[in-house]
Amino acid sequence: MNKCEILYGAIGIIHSEHKEEGKTPIQPVYAKGSKGYVELFPEFLDGLRDLNEFSHIYLIYHFHKAQQAKLVVKPYLQDVDHGVFATRAPCRPNPIGLSVVELLGIEDNVLHLDGVDILDGTPLLDIKPYTTKFDLRNVTKNGWQDEVDGHTARKKGKRGYKS
Amino acid sequence: MNKCEILYGAIGIIHSEHKEEGKTPIQPVYAKGSKGYVELFPEFLDGLRDLNEFSHIYLIYHFHKAQQAKLVVKPYLQDVDHGVFATRAPCRPNPIGLSVVELLGIEDNVLHLDGVDILDGTPLLDIKPYTTKFDLRNVTKNGWQDEVDGHTARKKGKRGYKS
Repeated sequence: MNKCEILYGAIGIIHSEHKEEGKTPIQPVYAKGSKGYVELFPEFLDGLRDLNEFSHIYLIYHFHKAQQAKLVVKPYLQDVDHGVFATRAPCRPNPIGLSVVELLGIEDNVLHLDGVDILDGTPLLDIKPYTTKFDLRNVTKNGWQDEVDGHTARKKGKRGYKS
Repeated sequence: MNKCEILYGAIGIIHSEHKEEGKTPIQPVYAKGSKGYVELFPEFLDGLRDLNEFSHIYLIYHFHKAQQAKLVVKPYLQDVDHGVFATRAPCRPNPIGLSVVELLGIEDNVLHLDGVDILDGTPLLDIKPYTTKFDLRNVTKNGWQDEVDGHTARKKGKRGYKS
């Protein structure tokens, strides 16, 4: 196993009110009230069975508007250089985005969401349930994020979105 | 934007004690004590700056041994059919894996980990910090997972791994 090429295809499109990168909230926790929806391509419809019984889901998607990858970046929340893997910035070697969003309901192949921090038109790669058993972990160290107070983080993290 | 093809490349390899799919724990919470490491390809080294100050990280990886995608699956924890997007099963349309692992330390391009539920030799796609601000969410519904008691889940979830 070495530096293989890995080919994926979009399973759907994420729709949101965010039309400009610079005004898109940086995380779902700073996008509360921002509704959006996933339009899953109809051939994947059977994969949604029972998903509506989860309150939160992971969306894994392709940052289709990401700039060229950089290994050292200043995150939106702090004007200090960090390694890109210590941030959630989009300009990653593989521009993969990860958001935990609230699932409001499902109608046919449409998933209605709250807390959408994703640019309109983003290609979706995968959906997974976010669950108490698997995903709530005992974090003890938050690195540079602990240096940013909650008020500043919320203000910077919304990036123009008014909730 | 429609059904585009998306090309990624491995940024490193995940090494673990798990050599057989059927004996690999299904989630990090059932793999406590199972050490492993990421060998990041050296050209990405600068991306690790300050990552060692986080206790937990997301690994996003390619299920390179996944069987053909199925839209309806029985998850390991329950003998009932569910849509694949309502489970964490590997046989997904895009076989992308997601694990929250404990970061024990970093030496050069090697990340030492605990709670590794990943098959040895798995290609790594991305690393992100898992943080209190972004990733601890107020889950209210866990779908079918609420029907599986904790003892049964631990027993089935370890799949032969003795912690």
